[in-house]
Amino acid sequence: MHFASDNTAPVPPQILAALARANEGHAMGYGNDPLTARVQARIRDLFEAPQAEVHLVSTGTAANSLALALLCPPWGAVFCEADAHVMRDECGAPEFFTGGAKLVGVPGRHGRITPDGLAEALARTGSSGVHGVQRGALSLTNVTEAGTVYDPDAIAALTALARAKGLPSHLDGARFANALAATGATPAQMTWKAGIDAVSFGGTKNGLMGAEAVVIFDPAGAWELQLRRKRAGHLASKMRYIAAQIDGWLDDGLWMTLAAHANAMAARLAQGLQARATVLHPVEANMIFARWPAGTHARLKAAGAVYYEMPAPGGEEAARLVTSWSTSGADVDRFLAALAG
Amino acid sequence: MHFASDNTAPVPPQILAALARANEGHAMGYGNDPLTARVQARIRDLFEAPQAEVHLVSTGTAANSLALALLCPPWGAVFCEADAHVMRDECGAPEFFTGGAKLVGVPGRHGRITPDGLAEALARTGSSGVHGVQRGALSLTNVTEAGTVYDPDAIAALTALARAKGLPSHLDGARFANALAATGATPAQMTWKAGIDAVSFGGTKNGLMGAEAVVIFDPAGAWELQLRRKRAGHLASKMRYIAAQIDGWLDDGLWMTLAAHANAMAARLAQGLQARATVLHPVEANMIFARWPAGTHARLKAAGAVYYEMPAPGGEEAARLVTSWSTSGADVDRFLAALAG
Amino acid sequence: MHFASDNTAPVPPQILAALARANEGHAMGYGNDPLTARVQARIRDLFEAPQAEVHLVSTGTAANSLALALLCPPWGAVFCEADAHVMRDECGAPEFFTGGAKLVGVPGRHGRITPDGLAEALARTGSSGVHGVQRGALSLTNVTEAGTVYDPDAIAALTALARAKGLPSHLDGARFANALAATGATPAQMTWKAGIDAVSFGGTKNGLMGAEAVVIFDPAGAWELQLRRKRAGHLASKMRYIAAQIDGWLDDGLWMTLAAHANAMAARLAQGLQARATVLHPVEANMIFARWPAGTHARLKAAGAVYYEMPAPGGEEAARLVTSWSTSGADVDRFLAALAG
Amino acid sequence: MHFASDNTAPVPPQILAALARANEGHAMGYGNDPLTARVQARIRDLFEAPQAEVHLVSTGTAANSLALALLCPPWGAVFCEADAHVMRDECGAPEFFTGGAKLVGVPGRHGRITPDGLAEALARTGSSGVHGVQRGALSLTNVTEAGTVYDPDAIAALTALARAKGLPSHLDGARFANALAATGATPAQMTWKAGIDAVSFGGTKNGLMGAEAVVIFDPAGAWELQLRRKRAGHLASKMRYIAAQIDGWLDDGLWMTLAAHANAMAARLAQGLQARATVLHPVEANMIFARWPAGTHARLKAAGAVYYEMPAPGGEEAARLVTSWSTSGADVDRFLAALAG
Repeated sequence: MHFASDNTAPVPPQILAALARANEGHAMGYGNDPLTARVQARIRDLFEAPQAEVHLVSTGTAANSLALALLCPPWGAVFCEADAHVMRDECGAPEFFTGGAKLVGVPGRHGRITPDGLAEALARTGSSGVHGVQRGALSLTNVTEAGTVYDPDAIAALTALARAKGLPSHLDGARFANALAATGATPAQMTWKAGIDAVSFGGTKNGLMGAEAVVIFDPAGAWELQLRRKRAGHLASKMRYIAAQIDGWLDDGLWMTLAAHANAMAARLAQGLQARATVLHPVEANMIFARWPAGTHARLKAAGAVYYEMPAPGGEEAARLVTSWSTSGADVDRFLAALAG
Repeated sequence: MHFASDNTAPVPPQILAALARANEGHAMGYGNDPLTARVQARIRDLFEAPQAEVHLVSTGTAANSLALALLCPPWGAVFCEADAHVMRDECGAPEFFTGGAKLVGVPGRHGRITPDGLAEALARTGSSGVHGVQRGALSLTNVTEAGTVYDPDAIAALTALARAKGLPSHLDGARFANALAATGATPAQMTWKAGIDAVSFGGTKNGLMGAEAVVIFDPAGAWELQLRRKRAGHLASKMRYIAAQIDGWLDDGLWMTLAAHANAMAARLAQGLQARATVLHPVEANMIFARWPAGTHARLKAAGAVYYEMPAPGGEEAARLVTSWSTSGADVDRFLAALAG
Repeated sequence: MHFASDNTAPVPPQILAALARANEGHAMGYGNDPLTARVQARIRDLFEAPQAEVHLVSTGTAANSLALALLCPPWGAVFCEADAHVMRDECGAPEFFTGGAKLVGVPGRHGRITPDGLAEALARTGSSGVHGVQRGALSLTNVTEAGTVYDPDAIAALTALARAKGLPSHLDGARFANALAATGATPAQMTWKAGIDAVSFGGTKNGLMGAEAVVIFDPAGAWELQLRRKRAGHLASKMRYIAAQIDGWLDDGLWMTLAAHANAMAARLAQGLQARATVLHPVEANMIFARWPAGTHARLKAAGAVYYEMPAPGGEEAARLVTSWSTSGADVDRFLAALAG
Repeated sequence: MHFASDNTAPVPPQILAALARANEGHAMGYGNDPLTARVQARIRDLFEAPQAEVHLVSTGTAANSLALALLCPPWGAVFCEADAHVMRDECGAPEFFTGGAKLVGVPGRHGRITPDGLAEALARTGSSGVHGVQRGALSLTNVTEAGTVYDPDAIAALTALARAKGLPSHLDGARFANALAATGATPAQMTWKAGIDAVSFGGTKNGLMGAEAVVIFDPAGAWELQLRRKRAGHLASKMRYIAAQIDGWLDDGLWMTLAAHANAMAARLAQGLQARATVLHPVEANMIFARWPAGTHARLKAAGAVYYEMPAPGGEEAARLVTSWSTSGADVDRFLAALAG
């Protein structure tokens, strides 16, 4: 009954097997090995983007920050949802990597930036000549921090507003596969076809040990991206072990199977919660925010449930519940039974 | 016959086994798991430093840069050997992490900074009040870039000079185990007992997939170090998989066995090289620099040898040869046979 | 009829005279001259702070950014009013100087941060361990961006909240003299006695060509401040010409006379505006924000009035009007006459 | 007898007069005033560069650092003479402004980089792919730190080497007028006709209070330069007072008269020194480095001479002597008389 995060789960056996397969013989370092090349090609194929540049790192913070540093100058503003991960949960990593850009929080609705909110933020920032920071880039998160999902049209509507001001767009896809599973969109539909210029294609929250890909669709930025990665200590010398994880994960659609399962478990959990809790945002992927009566935390924890508590108004309690590839239906049912008391 | 680098080798089976063992059940993220705690404790024990703070990252560049950022302010100078890895091979990572510190190259002899060279550099830098960068920190590399080794006394002599000017000292221990194996020193003797304040304790070049520990002996810097790590995207969410590698590697002294073997293979190779090449620096660990007649590269490569060529004067050829835990005596002998032609 | 800004005014003749007096003979550079020392001493006296460190720069952006960089680490949050000058009008200078800190906008009322607003922001930021930016510093602006003024008690209430969380406080005093004139407070009452740790003591908006003092009450930061100033290109080699301006301005209380006059002109203007415009914030110093019927801009500009237009809702027009030491009663009256049409 | 620096001199009366003239009426801030526009146009004319962008700042450190930040990315190397001002005397300002670039010291001869030295440095740096910093920009200083001068051909030879590697070139012209006076070259010949892309056109060391112009010949960088200037706190709100200084200084060729006089005084001093001292570098502008017997310092200082002592070998003494527009023949003669004892 572990619902604290999708990064507390173990990895599926296929990933260990992929590591073991990659562990044969010598391989040149720093990504100059055949397995890394193979994974880069697979990801280009997946995104239907033959020109795309794909570079691997081991954390989502690195992927996001490198992508933003590529898209936004030090004197730029990154427009993101007010509670986005890049805003709240990276200890200022985007500021560090960009050399001091400013993150401008755009109010969202259930975690999704609205076109009106973005239009207003774009109008308000960067309109005072040299005195204010300039408009730099848009950053969207999909799955959002509220557990909701943008479909490709919603993304396209926002990137179009950004592009009208000359801004490129980044997608924080820490839970990219969950967003695809939720919408049925292809990677291409969810990204470059919807106006996205750079994606953090996340693996760690979906069954990997630590593997993410930065995908940029305009290869002009490739060398700068690689220099920034090296300079930030994110060019792994034994890159094959990052590549191997992704390689095993892409085999037979495992990555999508894992995400679809996580989403299904969240749906099952959300369904069961209806009776005894208020679900705070539409449950569209693998994350649930719920509010319930005081005393519930104690009962659930006594039953062995693990999750993060959230602040709640008025004497109630609230929680974030995250499912993963490793969540079982039995886990969900035991949680619901404990909730029922 | 792969002598390009110790980071082209695979990992020993024990490391894969350790990963598999760590892959059971859920574990809290970001280092808040029992395995990470266990590894931190083991490293503290190893260094006989109960107060030490140990924080794990996945690359040596990150370990070095975080340690230097902790020790040296943006307006400081890091004194290092003129061809040190931090100076030449990290694309300015120390400058990035420190916020723009200046690396001052101190001339070395066979890769080792001499006390005179350091004294002169210390006297010349930081003596012009507010106008020049201030003296910041000393950074030593052991094993050095020339494949030589500092013994604890040599380190103590240099850190004493630094300390006399109020400077802390960092040890880039990307090949720390090889240096221990070469000298017989203990981790404590090689570090805090010799005046070192922060160590990059490297695992990746000695049989791991990607695991390094930053060890600081004054715990006062621990929180800053953790914030810097997070902000640089180096706080792994699934930390247990970095910890697991180190855990398996420390079992039964495996880490020292691997390093001792690599050193022994280098000694054997160096011995064989004497007849037909000029060995350029004393061979004290697992790295050899050699010069040989023109035409040798072609013969060796035809025989399947892989290594980096180096510039050489006067029509000769030169090479860097690195051995690893996975180098076999047969590899060495085949190389020497190919060299003999 | 020039109400665009207090930095469009000329300087009073006493300042030119002070420059001429300072222009005798040689003087050591970089602030090592007797005139700079004299001005530093005068400012220490003025603030009744014998231990204070006083360092001169030529712009308010530099003064603010240096002070904030001293008080807030790269991973810290600077709490400031949502529309503060440091937030909106310095093109990210605080982010640049601090090495990427995050400015957190606190909602204000008529430009003044409320204790409740600050308490909430302090509670929300820096409470997620290593994942979020840490609480760094409080920055208040007095006179505020809305033309209102904090009295010492209001400042003390806010700095007390900051201090309870361990945070130091900065005062952006670009219009410090206007704030003193408005409240009758002494420099000491307005700053260290009210919990302020660092002040940007502004001269440029109050009659100088380009002269500001950073005053810090804890001398422990003095050397770091001087290194940061040098490194940012703000250590003037011929410092005596910055010092001279301040010296002439402190003579005979000129600085307070200039500010009191500017405030009086604003009061006169505000009074006259009542009949035909809506004054948007209490007019407490030398800045007025007003809304008036459509068509008014055209009439005023035809009459020669210069000022910045502001966005206004619903077909109306709005303006910012700033008075200065050089504004005359006749200027005000002509403006009001033009307004009357 | 003040030979400490050209920045210890007062300013000529014409500069005070120019400030007084500029002090009439209101003027828009931040460089949007007619006087600034006029000075920008005059400088464009002076450089025979109608497309050039000219932006004013108050210190040479700012001018140099902004120019370098425009030309060199954070992961780049700035090639400069090993003892250049940007390397030794700006407390890491170029590192700060560039976001952590590395300054690579090129050995010089009498302060001038030699083509061979530069070629070697260019070959050695930036040749290891992603691992090392990349080649970024060349920075020359004219007058050099040794008091010697590059003529346009010497500059062209060096910038050609840089350009062959794709690098732009910067000229630190803190003593630009002295270099022109020494060579008879025009501003255009000394800069863009010789391959220079950005100049720090210095006024402060040649009779101004604090005024420098950054001149870039490719206007594409203009907006970035202005944003960087603002963000660094170097956009003066009352720009007219910086512009006024330059305006008065350009009138009637005053700027060249001042520099020619300083050079002439240095020549006279050097001539007189021959008998009793060893002049260490060719005296080509307004700076002299000399070595003399022990005991001389005491005698000169007793006579009232002010200058910086330099380290000297073998019991001798050494000094740097700088002349300025305000040095008189009588000053020189008194110094020489005191030297004679």
